[in-house]
Amino acid sequence: MTMDMTFLGTGSAYPSPHRGASALVLRSEGDCWLFDCGEGTQTQLMKSQLRAGRITKVFISHLHGDHLFGLPGLLCTVSLNTNPEQENLNCVDIYGPRGLRHFLRVTLGLTGSQLLFPYAVHELEPTAEQSPEEGQLSLEMTAESCPLHPQEQPGRTISLDVSTDSYFLFEDKKFVVKAFRLFHRIPSFGFCIQEHDRPGRLKTELLKELGVKPGPHYGRLKAGEAVTMENGRVILPQEVLEGNIPGRKVCIFGDCSSVLGDGALLLCKGADILVHEATLGDEHREKAVDHGHSTPGMAAAVARACCVQRLVLYHFSQRYKPCSLQKEGDEDEVSELKRQAEDALQDTGVEVTLAEDFLTIPIPVRRPSTTN
Amino acid sequence: MTMDMTFLGTGSAYPSPHRGASALVLRSEGDCWLFDCGEGTQTQLMKSQLRAGRITKVFISHLHGDHLFGLPGLLCTVSLNTNPEQENLNCVDIYGPRGLRHFLRVTLGLTGSQLLFPYAVHELEPTAEQSPEEGQLSLEMTAESCPLHPQEQPGRTISLDVSTDSYFLFEDKKFVVKAFRLFHRIPSFGFCIQEHDRPGRLKTELLKELGVKPGPHYGRLKAGEAVTMENGRVILPQEVLEGNIPGRKVCIFGDCSSVLGDGALLLCKGADILVHEATLGDEHREKAVDHGHSTPGMAAAVARACCVQRLVLYHFSQRYKPCSLQKEGDEDEVSELKRQAEDALQDTGVEVTLAEDFLTIPIPVRRPSTTN
Ligand SMILES: [Zn+2]
Ligand SMILES: [Zn+2]
Ligand SMILES: [Zn+2]
Ligand SMILES: [Zn+2]
Repeated sequence: MTMDMTFLGTGSAYPSPHRGASALVLRSEGDCWLFDCGEGTQTQLMKSQLRAGRITKVFISHLHGDHLFGLPGLLCTVSLNTNPEQENLNCVDIYGPRGLRHFLRVTLGLTGSQLLFPYAVHELEPTAEQSPEEGQLSLEMTAESCPLHPQEQPGRTISLDVSTDSYFLFEDKKFVVKAFRLFHRIPSFGFCIQEHDRPGRLKTELLKELGVKPGPHYGRLKAGEAVTMENGRVILPQEVLEGNIPGRKVCIFGDCSSVLGDGALLLCKGADILVHEATLGDEHREKAVDHGHSTPGMAAAVARACCVQRLVLYHFSQRYKPCSLQKEGDEDEVSELKRQAEDALQDTGVEVTLAEDFLTIPIPVRRPSTTN
Repeated sequence: MTMDMTFLGTGSAYPSPHRGASALVLRSEGDCWLFDCGEGTQTQLMKSQLRAGRITKVFISHLHGDHLFGLPGLLCTVSLNTNPEQENLNCVDIYGPRGLRHFLRVTLGLTGSQLLFPYAVHELEPTAEQSPEEGQLSLEMTAESCPLHPQEQPGRTISLDVSTDSYFLFEDKKFVVKAFRLFHRIPSFGFCIQEHDRPGRLKTELLKELGVKPGPHYGRLKAGEAVTMENGRVILPQEVLEGNIPGRKVCIFGDCSSVLGDGALLLCKGADILVHEATLGDEHREKAVDHGHSTPGMAAAVARACCVQRLVLYHFSQRYKPCSLQKEGDEDEVSELKRQAEDALQDTGVEVTLAEDFLTIPIPVRRPSTTN
């Protein structure tokens, strides 16, 4: 099952002609999940190889404009490109902090934006420790006073599961998705997408030797059931299956100057990919933290604590031009951010990648485990 | 006094990589007024020669997303580029339909967007005839339930002046600005920017002959006062002033399938420039009108009725690629839209211009009138 991740915007604070505002797409077999949606994301999507119409779920890490202002327009444009004759359009599920439901209801409502598909906003209830007090939204601000959008379906309100320090978003056939708490100027979340383990491949040579023919027996063995042959011989699935294929794990952090509680570390342990912001270089660490942001060294510390395979940095200050536009003599080199993270991870084997707009990172299937 | 107009987006419905969503800037001596602000306008501004920080006033023709979704982000980015040490920052005045105040309060409020400068939203109260009933916003939708933004100043609520069928927005030293009603799927407005007439130049040769020396006498004559010479000779301003320089008039229409009432025609009479939407070609007139839009022929009819100098078309369906990207065999040619308007204005001498993103149109000073 192919899986990849495409960055649509890697800049912080605002979109610019050389770096879009935050947005990335996680794709698995054509299904696209969008993480954050800064202004201009729909245009970035058009420039990419992805199709906006394939977006089935949206995740908003926090309500800052550079992660959110593109969402109403994106939904409108997806709707414009939807065939009105199509029946039973799927509901687009949108996950994000409390206040997101009101934001969409007002922006879509006041602009008379009709959508051809239903949508639901599932709100994560932040805790008080996720931001300074002035970053918390009053209940008055998030009260859903105006009428529901005609296409709005009731969404869930998701509270912190204190026992695991995480938020359970949903589980489907392929994935279980949870969120965890981050500290930022306003409440921010990270998302952990955990693919289910899958049974290994059937050892077809061995099955042939044992006299099992392709057909129903194959299916039952693959599903983990034992099979009794006509001669009475019982074949156990673990005899004829290669090791389980462990599910991949992708973790995407929202803006933060630190994790909060144990949730992030517990969930992100051993991730294939950890996407973390690095707004400013380590030499600006104090300024970064003041603004609720991280440096490459701080991102590396999280990657190290979680023993991840690969750390991807994004959300760069607009002062860092993409490598391709870098000119000799430019002071702020984005490649220096990569060096800083690499230095901090020297002894770990963690691979460091700088995201750029339109970079696609394949996420290869894991190797089967040696035991079942 | 130099004056020009720059188009930042000329596409309808949504922004695309080849046409931004609606936005244009009218500039006079460095001061920039922004008309409409679709998603991505701030990025288009960065690509242009204009500076977002010079925007002092914003006018929103109607609340459709392709004219509005870029405004919260634009305000945030202007603020980020404002020097926080600067004192007495001017208030940004924002004019638009009822509902705009609530839209900004919610989008800026929920995203924790702090602004360094004050802003005020002056709302135009639409009348029921400006749209079908389903396009009208209920009072419930526009009720300003959530708290004021810390930088929000009280704005005016402007009602239709029935005697002139127009809305008086403001008058300053250089201009008087009014709005007029249009018919669209939701209430839409056009704006008329009328420059004040200015006194003509002093006839310096004649003044020399009359023995008037440069100095205070010049100032008083220019200001329209008579001057008495030492020899008792009274010099009247009209003797020594060239004809008045008539003020320029620029009219910018929001989306519409027709004007409403007499306001538009009364206000736009003799305009130097009339900017009008032409979403689809004349062959799609029925579809255009169904969607509340105009064709080149319809725009031309307005230009003809108003006896304008120049008609500028914009807000093209994204099916029309810019001329520069047109390929042989492309079916929808934007140049055909120009031909259609020109055909309809054949006998009038009205100049027709197709707007493209980043096109700047100078608006030359008018010739002095022959009489004072
Ligand atoms: Zn951010
Ligand atoms: Zn943020
Ligand atoms: Zn429009
Ligand atoms: Zn419209």
